[in-house]
Amino acid sequence: MLSEDQLVERTGRVLPSILGWRGSGIVRIGIGDDAAVLAPGRRTDWVITCDQFLEDVHFLAGIHPPDSVGYKALVRAASDIAAMGAAPRFFLLSMALPANRTGAWFDAYLKGMARAARALGMRLIGGDTTEARSVSVDITVLGEIARGRAVTRSGARPGDIICVSGRLGRAQLGLELVRRGVGHNPRFRNLLRPHFYPQIRLELGAWLARHRLATAMMDISDGLSTDLGRLCRASRVGALLWEERVPAVETPASGAKRLPGKQRDAVQMALHGGDDYGLLFTVAPRDLKRLKRAPGFRELTPIGEIVRGRRVELVGRDGSRKLLKPHGWDPFRRS
Amino acid sequence: MLSEDQLVERTGRVLPSILGWRGSGIVRIGIGDDAAVLAPGRRTDWVITCDQFLEDVHFLAGIHPPDSVGYKALVRAASDIAAMGAAPRFFLLSMALPANRTGAWFDAYLKGMARAARALGMRLIGGDTTEARSVSVDITVLGEIARGRAVTRSGARPGDIICVSGRLGRAQLGLELVRRGVGHNPRFRNLLRPHFYPQIRLELGAWLARHRLATAMMDISDGLSTDLGRLCRASRVGALLWEERVPAVETPASGAKRLPGKQRDAVQMALHGGDDYGLLFTVAPRDLKRLKRAPGFRELTPIGEIVRGRRVELVGRDGSRKLLKPHGWDPFRRS
Repeated sequence: MLSEDQLVERTGRVLPSILGWRGSGIVRIGIGDDAAVLAPGRRTDWVITCDQFLEDVHFLAGIHPPDSVGYKALVRAASDIAAMGAAPRFFLLSMALPANRTGAWFDAYLKGMARAARALGMRLIGGDTTEARSVSVDITVLGEIARGRAVTRSGARPGDIICVSGRLGRAQLGLELVRRGVGHNPRFRNLLRPHFYPQIRLELGAWLARHRLATAMMDISDGLSTDLGRLCRASRVGALLWEERVPAVETPASGAKRLPGKQRDAVQMALHGGDDYGLLFTVAPRDLKRLKRAPGFRELTPIGEIVRGRRVELVGRDGSRKLLKPHGWDPFRRS
Repeated sequence: MLSEDQLVERTGRVLPSILGWRGSGIVRIGIGDDAAVLAPGRRTDWVITCDQFLEDVHFLAGIHPPDSVGYKALVRAASDIAAMGAAPRFFLLSMALPANRTGAWFDAYLKGMARAARALGMRLIGGDTTEARSVSVDITVLGEIARGRAVTRSGARPGDIICVSGRLGRAQLGLELVRRGVGHNPRFRNLLRPHFYPQIRLELGAWLARHRLATAMMDISDGLSTDLGRLCRASRVGALLWEERVPAVETPASGAKRLPGKQRDAVQMALHGGDDYGLLFTVAPRDLKRLKRAPGFRELTPIGEIVRGRRVELVGRDGSRKLLKPHGWDPFRRS
């Protein structure tokens, strides 16, 4: 069995990382000392966040491929950095592992994480490794952005248009398939992918921040109904969400009989399903046409409007309004 | 039962923290957004580390008082910052909690952490909260230090004198008492304290860094034998450790019959016991007398000498030498 030091050594070798006392650029000291040392520049703000990814809470080690666990743990954490408009640069990796996951499982897990790190341009600078009965991963990400340009959740103003990137509910559909026991079935590979290997919109977030176009922004990690509520609370505003404009998941492919196939379910998944990591942002109406130059513009959808007050309401096709309660992911809620 | 958002809200209220979008000094954006935003100064290096504190691995929820869990989780993480000579400033708090620990247990736990945060001058700027079957805490600490002054593990040179702060094995003695079932016994309160509420040497670490006196430094968290081995590997040197100079724990108080009372055990606890968080550092011989002005000088003990080669040897009272194997804490080793 590997010792803690051996696990750390292997981790530093497999992941893009800054090892030892050589440092590199703004990282003066990387992995291997008590802490990493950074010398940030004058014109840069640092953005920092952490995110947990736990066995039996966020993934099932028997079902989720280990490379998906590594991949998704990092992508989820980096998504909060993208949601500020910043570029993720470095990460610290805390891991607790059962002894029987320090071999082949660990290697595949690290490979998935390395793939995400390379895709996102991130490097490991520190962490902590210990044993536990189940796998838990906690990742701290450091990102950078030009001074003063980070986009918060708190800047939405009445009249602003609410936009999202990508379709919503795709990851939830993948999760439903996993729950129905077809997580290993290659026929469903494309429908599972958004759940196993989510994509985040680094370029879009950075572009919106650089052009000061988003008045408020966050990623949709717990579901639109929950996350829009948070954005509105932070901004002290309300919202009208146009139900028919919410970009729900495509009707599932024919033959996928085990799926929740009704359009009704697709809308529910789009409103409350988490894990899509699309960007939710608000734009002043006069700036809406400037969005045409955004990277991935075709994937953007205006879905509602910020209003005075504090109510978040869903507007049906017939113009009827009802309160949109936060029914996204809350780990402490019993359903 | 509290929701995730309610737990976060309570955490931000109880702990010294930087909330919301008001920011403060170099923290532009604190708790409540996707990530915290920092604007570090030009003459400052940032030091960053993370540390896990897990139920059934590092503590037993039935035995360790909840305020000790909160206190120690933060102190452990900050100790790595002190070991670089830096001042801990901010922290991110990742927590996974069972639902039955979100009430009174949670309040006491936060109180303990708040006490540590105030003592160390630290403020919360972010985190992540989720549910799990057992308590896990992972804390990322950001510290600051004058540019280029951080003390690494890698600067020890042959001839340097090895020093430690405080007595070693005190926390191990407390752990042994807990294992013998007297963790709740008020008679043993003083002996348990170093295990439940360890102290770290912020002032000493900062003083050594400021005066450029320590050629290498780290904290003793896993035990002297393991940590001195790491310092030597990082510095590519060997060491001679003078057994009779190692400041072992005091002979246990009379009446403490359940203790491992023999002096032999005290030396073993000093060599291999973890969790003391004393500082281990090396000093050039010509600088040794300057240590007299160090804060807590009376607690410092020279315990050995750095030598060429890579062997770490224990020198007995009779001058005999034997290899000192790393027998400190390794979560992956089966004893």
